[in-house]
Amino acid sequence: MIIVLKPSATPEQVTNFTDMLKTDYDVRVNRWDGIHSTVLGLIGDTTQIDIEYIDAQDIVESVKRVQEPYKKANRKFHPENTAIKINDEVTIGDGSLNIIAGPCSVESEEQIVGIANNVKKSGATLLRGGAFKPRTSPYAFQGLKAEGLDLLKAARKQTGLPIVTEIMRVSHIDMFENVDIIQVGARNMQNFELLKELGKIDKPILLKRGLSATIEEWLMSAEYIMAGGNNKVILCERGIRTYENFTRNTLDISAIPIVKKLSHLPVVVDPSHASGKSWLVEPLAMASVAAGADGLIIEVHNDPPHALSDGAQSLTPAQFDVVAKKAFELKKALK
Amino acid sequence: MIIVLKPSATPEQVTNFTDMLKTDYDVRVNRWDGIHSTVLGLIGDTTQIDIEYIDAQDIVESVKRVQEPYKKANRKFHPENTAIKINDEVTIGDGSLNIIAGPCSVESEEQIVGIANNVKKSGATLLRGGAFKPRTSPYAFQGLKAEGLDLLKAARKQTGLPIVTEIMRVSHIDMFENVDIIQVGARNMQNFELLKELGKIDKPILLKRGLSATIEEWLMSAEYIMAGGNNKVILCERGIRTYENFTRNTLDISAIPIVKKLSHLPVVVDPSHASGKSWLVEPLAMASVAAGADGLIIEVHNDPPHALSDGAQSLTPAQFDVVAKKAFELKKALK
Amino acid sequence: MIIVLKPSATPEQVTNFTDMLKTDYDVRVNRWDGIHSTVLGLIGDTTQIDIEYIDAQDIVESVKRVQEPYKKANRKFHPENTAIKINDEVTIGDGSLNIIAGPCSVESEEQIVGIANNVKKSGATLLRGGAFKPRTSPYAFQGLKAEGLDLLKAARKQTGLPIVTEIMRVSHIDMFENVDIIQVGARNMQNFELLKELGKIDKPILLKRGLSATIEEWLMSAEYIMAGGNNKVILCERGIRTYENFTRNTLDISAIPIVKKLSHLPVVVDPSHASGKSWLVEPLAMASVAAGADGLIIEVHNDPPHALSDGAQSLTPAQFDVVAKKAFELKKALK
Amino acid sequence: MIIVLKPSATPEQVTNFTDMLKTDYDVRVNRWDGIHSTVLGLIGDTTQIDIEYIDAQDIVESVKRVQEPYKKANRKFHPENTAIKINDEVTIGDGSLNIIAGPCSVESEEQIVGIANNVKKSGATLLRGGAFKPRTSPYAFQGLKAEGLDLLKAARKQTGLPIVTEIMRVSHIDMFENVDIIQVGARNMQNFELLKELGKIDKPILLKRGLSATIEEWLMSAEYIMAGGNNKVILCERGIRTYENFTRNTLDISAIPIVKKLSHLPVVVDPSHASGKSWLVEPLAMASVAAGADGLIIEVHNDPPHALSDGAQSLTPAQFDVVAKKAFELKKALK
Repeated sequence: MIIVLKPSATPEQVTNFTDMLKTDYDVRVNRWDGIHSTVLGLIGDTTQIDIEYIDAQDIVESVKRVQEPYKKANRKFHPENTAIKINDEVTIGDGSLNIIAGPCSVESEEQIVGIANNVKKSGATLLRGGAFKPRTSPYAFQGLKAEGLDLLKAARKQTGLPIVTEIMRVSHIDMFENVDIIQVGARNMQNFELLKELGKIDKPILLKRGLSATIEEWLMSAEYIMAGGNNKVILCERGIRTYENFTRNTLDISAIPIVKKLSHLPVVVDPSHASGKSWLVEPLAMASVAAGADGLIIEVHNDPPHALSDGAQSLTPAQFDVVAKKAFELKKALK
Repeated sequence: MIIVLKPSATPEQVTNFTDMLKTDYDVRVNRWDGIHSTVLGLIGDTTQIDIEYIDAQDIVESVKRVQEPYKKANRKFHPENTAIKINDEVTIGDGSLNIIAGPCSVESEEQIVGIANNVKKSGATLLRGGAFKPRTSPYAFQGLKAEGLDLLKAARKQTGLPIVTEIMRVSHIDMFENVDIIQVGARNMQNFELLKELGKIDKPILLKRGLSATIEEWLMSAEYIMAGGNNKVILCERGIRTYENFTRNTLDISAIPIVKKLSHLPVVVDPSHASGKSWLVEPLAMASVAAGADGLIIEVHNDPPHALSDGAQSLTPAQFDVVAKKAFELKKALK
Repeated sequence: MIIVLKPSATPEQVTNFTDMLKTDYDVRVNRWDGIHSTVLGLIGDTTQIDIEYIDAQDIVESVKRVQEPYKKANRKFHPENTAIKINDEVTIGDGSLNIIAGPCSVESEEQIVGIANNVKKSGATLLRGGAFKPRTSPYAFQGLKAEGLDLLKAARKQTGLPIVTEIMRVSHIDMFENVDIIQVGARNMQNFELLKELGKIDKPILLKRGLSATIEEWLMSAEYIMAGGNNKVILCERGIRTYENFTRNTLDISAIPIVKKLSHLPVVVDPSHASGKSWLVEPLAMASVAAGADGLIIEVHNDPPHALSDGAQSLTPAQFDVVAKKAFELKKALK
Repeated sequence: MIIVLKPSATPEQVTNFTDMLKTDYDVRVNRWDGIHSTVLGLIGDTTQIDIEYIDAQDIVESVKRVQEPYKKANRKFHPENTAIKINDEVTIGDGSLNIIAGPCSVESEEQIVGIANNVKKSGATLLRGGAFKPRTSPYAFQGLKAEGLDLLKAARKQTGLPIVTEIMRVSHIDMFENVDIIQVGARNMQNFELLKELGKIDKPILLKRGLSATIEEWLMSAEYIMAGGNNKVILCERGIRTYENFTRNTLDISAIPIVKKLSHLPVVVDPSHASGKSWLVEPLAMASVAAGADGLIIEVHNDPPHALSDGAQSLTPAQFDVVAKKAFELKKALK
């Protein structure tokens, strides 16, 4: 951590401040005096130091971290890729490509089982489906809730596909016990109370990037879960909010290689939410695989025009079959 | 609602689609045929129609709402300003200026009571203070929690100032029963489960705008609370995320007159979080009052360099005294 | 074009407005009356109608285009891909992958010829190099100017590679006569005077997307050039400005398939400027090819740490060799 | 300037790099060695150092400026406010409030003279009007050009109001000789060739902030003009591009106090372009004055529904009269 002091800082203030840093944080402090300003360099473990607190000191002009503020999610302290084993056949982050597919909302047993069978044939290795739905409007369909979870489990039973579904509330955690991967949606990426509770269980968490979260904030949310003891975090890039509104969000393709460099956690991409348009899913899926993603999560619906949510971005099983095959072929070609 | 159909839509498809609209939504459908496309206009109550669902139909090129998707928060259906009475002396939204002041975090009884006494003298009409703190880092101070709530109540007892504090979790609602205004933080603006529960209680809610929420999404979150039966929603503009990073966020000053036009709900401004810098609080507070805000919420700390959170944006009681007096004088001059 | 009128519009006002539309713009006007508002639908060529003008009318609540505001750049009116022939060997937009490579700035004959030889061996089909440099600081290196153009031509003579270089001023157009592709930089994408003049010459123009240009604005800038008679426009995605500042810009990978759908013009991607970091060039280049780009433009420098500009994002010739080979292999695999 | 080196840097590399810095830039270099990294601090004039060049060095992990990269525009080196005298009656930046008013486009002598007379009566001290218009569409009205300049001069002759109008091309500078303030539009804020030429003349320049320019980039563009010898730069905040699209742009109200702190140059605000809606002009104008702006620039048209450009954001003379009076009263009340 590097701290630039104001020109107005007196020698006494600087000494007091330096002493405080050494005592309170157990760091060494280097100092040099420029023409216009004095600069302090802190050596030691600075992840515990609240940068805003330092910034609030009267004599401080600016502060800069040299080290990232996350530790458990940081590749520097864990150079090996984290591979998360879901069952005997599926591991995310081991160099293979996993495709998670399924409808935005679970609507009926017939629907979810039908889609599950279809996407499995096309090579999907996990089934997604929303039971509790975060909707912008209170008047929109809010999901089948507990029944939706049961239907997902029925589909898993028939297909063997592990299931991924979104949690929206701490008190539902028990209900999600039998789910294979619990998804935290973009709008809950900084629902810190939920993250803390998910840190206490032993289950993979698919952590979607917040609508306008920086990569650092996203990794800090992963850190929240890991700080509680649960290291099974899968990051999911799903597009960020920008001024461009042709697409629902803007897929930040660079986030894939950046997260792979900064962290050891696996990263998957959601081209459906990133674009909001079914015809963009294929090119974005291909780009994501080419950029190094460990997986894709794609919305598939048997009858998109009648989907209860997100129909505009859903592929039919036949369209998904094309995309999945191309994606697996691309993955093979890249090796 | 206006629906532009694709040039490829067949007459039969158009007829079927039109019939479906009439049957399912009880609306009248006007239609005209252009050279390149057919356009449908829906007449009736369209707030119940999921725009994404329509957009997902094969034959639909684009959809546009004419009516806003919110009803209870909409000034069109409630032309009078909503004024929210907090106690015998304090009403928000009645044309007066209310200033909510206090520390980011409650730290001790001495601290909160001291600050409460100070800000009251300067004209603040409500006391703020965080007991449960949403922090980006799991390693940062997370608030005094239940003890913080007790200390706030102690400060209220001594000063008579109503208290405003942030909730982070549905299961805490009971604990907040004795709080005067419950704050929903920016990161929880789309924590829909929390919003739904807050809709069931009879207590004013200060709803902060999400980090990258559009004005429409913000009003839709207010609608979530109101749809449950709780109409006491106070909107709080606190800066949005933009590419400019000189400030922590960018205060969207235009949001004040826009929200006043679109909605009947009161709107207050948080210049402290909007800027992240104490020296910007005064000019932003003045601008907010000039733009028509019903109130301000300002962070004040007895000793900002030692604040456990947000010190860099906190005013000392003496600085707050200057800002509050100028703001009240400005309010008077504007009449 | 669909025009929603205010509820307050009187029948007489509506009639007058409708008559004006028919007379001034030679369009047919359909009208239907809803409960809360009247809607007009315009049928005919609406590209000549200034949407802001309509929006300014007292009785107008909102306007929406159904047709895009660009014609010459629009795929609807020109369904075939535009392929731009640069010389006997190089055509951009014909389904092949072209790589434009070279230094940010031309620095010396030895440098540019050396790099040109290197990138040619790796498969680059065009040479880039800046002679006139747009720099944020007036104190930074501004390019070798006319001498730089001469050195580029010397490199072309020795390697046969067509040259691409940036123009910054209308009065330089004559000087660029012997250049193969004239580049318009991101900061000049809406320098309309320059665009108009480039519309009068017969030379391919590489039009970079502005820092915060929407896809529609970008295509409108292409339209400016094409409206003057020059149809040889190559679009170049180079990242957009967002709140995320880990990268210099955020590569908008979705722009590739979107532009391919909306327009017939070829699109190339600049992963160097999009990221600002050399280690990100490879994954972004691969993603761009997978998403359907017609080409790449990559910064290559013989000695990046001593480059006079943009060293941090430049590849060495050896690094470029790896990226180029992988990109061509990927292109082959995709077929 | 503080340079953090990579952990992999060898002692020899560090020594070589340090020697280069001292020799090439005439700075002193302080160094300290942390556990994970070595940090260098540069002391001396670092404005000449290209930060990207440093960032490109193999052994460099990151670089941070301590000093701003602009000098002539920097308040640190010029603590007094710059006041720019336009004529005997009008000075911008001396603590007074100046209002620049007039139509988006000059359309006829009758129009511009009529408006000039009106706005003068309401207290406007300068007249604005576009002769050369930057339009997104090549098919939209492009201004009356040279004739427009003549009409502005005629209006000045009749009213005595100094005139402000936009330049779009270097070769027009001679034509603008008789203009009182030359405006550089947002889209040309980084048209560096134009800025350089405007630095060579002795005339006030109104420099609009670019659509997505940071405050630092904006001040660097001012620096371009000042580096050429022309110190008469007036900064104009006109809204920035964000994800919120209810307004045309988002007025960055914080930019006013920030620019006043960082620079000695005067700053005016354009609430018309910032919002794009006439009903927002008043609250934004009031907010700007309250936040400390030296002036306002407001679009006024005798007949907004028939304005050839920007009608939706133009005030009528009667509406302007209200806004101007309120703004001057507010200014008085603030003293």
